Amino acid sequence: MDNFMLEAIFEAKKSLEEGGIPIGSVLVKDNQIVGRGHNRRVQKGSAILHAEMDALESVGRQPASFYEDVIIYTTLSPCSMCTGAILLYKIRHVVVGENKTFLGDEALLQERGVKVEVLDDETCFQLMQDFILKNRSLWSEDIGTSLTS
Amino acid sequence: MDNFMLEAIFEAKKSLEEGGIPIGSVLVKDNQIVGRGHNRRVQKGSAILHAEMDALESVGRQPASFYEDVIIYTTLSPCSMCTGAILLYKIRHVVVGENKTFLGDEALLQERGVKVEVLDDETCFQLMQDFILKNRSLWSEDIGTSLTS
Repeated sequence: MDNFMLEAIFEAKKSLEEGGIPIGSVLVKDNQIVGRGHNRRVQKGSAILHAEMDALESVGRQPASFYEDVIIYTTLSPCSMCTGAILLYKIRHVVVGENKTFLGDEALLQERGVKVEVLDDETCFQLMQDFILKNRSLWSEDIGTSLTS
Repeated sequence: MDNFMLEAIFEAKKSLEEGGIPIGSVLVKDNQIVGRGHNRRVQKGSAILHAEMDALESVGRQPASFYEDVIIYTTLSPCSMCTGAILLYKIRHVVVGENKTFLGDEALLQERGVKVEVLDDETCFQLMQDFILKNRSLWSEDIGTSLTS
């Protein structure tokens, strides 16, 4: 198992312990973790702090050159918002834990030249499956869908 | 002039007074402003608080149904990240102050069925032109480009 994905999973579990949605993310540069975060919808009443956004925010303001060799790891396929943030900062490589629970905008990332690697990781998948079983409404809110859709 | 765009401009000017980038946004629902915000890159050392994101965050957690009839006003064409957030929450209508300074991902919004109205507003344009003249590096950072590109 990829060590950086293990760290993203660590972030996802941290969110779960805080009563939040178990999605985590880390930013890797020169083989080192330079940023990390997890979904904070519940913890901060946030509409924008998905795991990837939280990880990007953890490194604060950076020039464009900073992102050139950044790899972003995320336990779950990035939604449209996180995809857009990846495109804004021209991050070239995304490693996704799983995309069976939710398939984000991977096609758009690829179309714009971003390398998308999907690990199909069982731990990432089970974390979300267990969570959604008990929190369907919260999960729908996080991806901007209604329960009936 | 559209009253809601005037409020978005008010937000942009507030950012300028705070030493920040003059871009503002408001969320309108049932003809009332329900959320507002401005770019906080400088003020909060933030990589993600563009004006539209700040406005979305100002209303906090909401169910998908909340966004169905929301119109988002922004003084400047939405970048990829803000475009992605608009798509995530399925906001159907975006009113843009101007897109001459920067043309965001309007084509993607339209491709996905979002109505994009561009007002070509001179105040919005001048605010950005005056700002960029004195702050080229900061502006490049905000849109994820290097000065030479």
